[in-house]
Amino acid sequence: MWHQEEIHLSERPRGFHLITHELVGALPWLAECERGLLHLQLLHTSASLTLNENSDPDVRHDLDAFLRELVPEGLPYFRHTLEGSDDMPAHVMASLMGTQLSLAVRSGRLALGTWQGIWLGEHREQGGERRILATLSGQD
Amino acid sequence: MWHQEEIHLSERPRGFHLITHELVGALPWLAECERGLLHLQLLHTSASLTLNENSDPDVRHDLDAFLRELVPEGLPYFRHTLEGSDDMPAHVMASLMGTQLSLAVRSGRLALGTWQGIWLGEHREQGGERRILATLSGQD
Amino acid sequence: MWHQEEIHLSERPRGFHLITHELVGALPWLAECERGLLHLQLLHTSASLTLNENSDPDVRHDLDAFLRELVPEGLPYFRHTLEGSDDMPAHVMASLMGTQLSLAVRSGRLALGTWQGIWLGEHREQGGERRILATLSGQD
Repeated sequence: MWHQEEIHLSERPRGFHLITHELVGALPWLAECERGLLHLQLLHTSASLTLNENSDPDVRHDLDAFLRELVPEGLPYFRHTLEGSDDMPAHVMASLMGTQLSLAVRSGRLALGTWQGIWLGEHREQGGERRILATLSGQD
Repeated sequence: MWHQEEIHLSERPRGFHLITHELVGALPWLAECERGLLHLQLLHTSASLTLNENSDPDVRHDLDAFLRELVPEGLPYFRHTLEGSDDMPAHVMASLMGTQLSLAVRSGRLALGTWQGIWLGEHREQGGERRILATLSGQD
Repeated sequence: MWHQEEIHLSERPRGFHLITHELVGALPWLAECERGLLHLQLLHTSASLTLNENSDPDVRHDLDAFLRELVPEGLPYFRHTLEGSDDMPAHVMASLMGTQLSLAVRSGRLALGTWQGIWLGEHREQGGERRILATLSGQD
């Protein structure tokens, strides 16, 4: 079985956001898949997708704080500055975190670890709506 | 063909560990796959999976040393500190390295480059046993 | 449908290179795939694959400049130094960026976002030819 669907996420503030439930809610055909893989591709280059802790919001705060320190705005060797001082750091963060994930599916559900959740990293101050293309392949 | 199996790795010390042979040994059905993809998902958020050099243990030492310098314990803006000073750095490293890999399969074997091996990154001092969910899709 | 093919990329200078068109040109069977996933695995450990901005070459310059600052040559705790001072930094960058990508395919084409392109990160001064193993699974 193959399914493919584009999911639209409303604008979120800069930082990391737990989107597991919103994504799964938009993919009802997941429930029909006994064994497979769900591929998620963010269609942007200044935001990211990563798997991390699904419980304490402080973990999301801390990873965002770490990245802001690691990739500050206004680095003297940055040339790509016309789209705003937060733009080039956002491109760097997108490649450090990644923009695509493949996730195991088992018995109609994402086979995440107990503490795993899907995070959207919004790395722009005003990133606007974000789109994810979800592709499922598997056995029903 | 689809196969799915959970693999249990015994506790390892903090650092990177080459696990290619242990993983392949646990997946006998790989040999039946003429062409496909093996997906590996670590079911944890304070350890990682990455592809890197399979020969000189110094490479594993050096990447671990680099990450310990990059993400030190006790950063003043970390809020998630109740689970130990190595916990939040481990979450950061997990997202920097990644926790899932898709690997090409060809003629019944992982189609790794000559120098490529699968590394488990254990980022906690006492991470305990780690579980990987392996999913194979392919042609026999 | 399954297809698998090894692609050879000629030597490029150190830095990031946009390779979307070269890759797609080497995979004519992509056009027959209505819905699927293209997996790309770089068969090396001192270069990388990442998705990022496909238009302004300054973005590629800036990410490379950032990584050279982040992972300088000659760090005092590096032990893996016999293959040249650029070698261990290249291994670090390979794991930070990643060496494999899965990309959605829709209506015979890569379903990239408007601004997304596939980048090869060449992290050695003289990395030589690089090989990518491309694996497509999907519906025709």
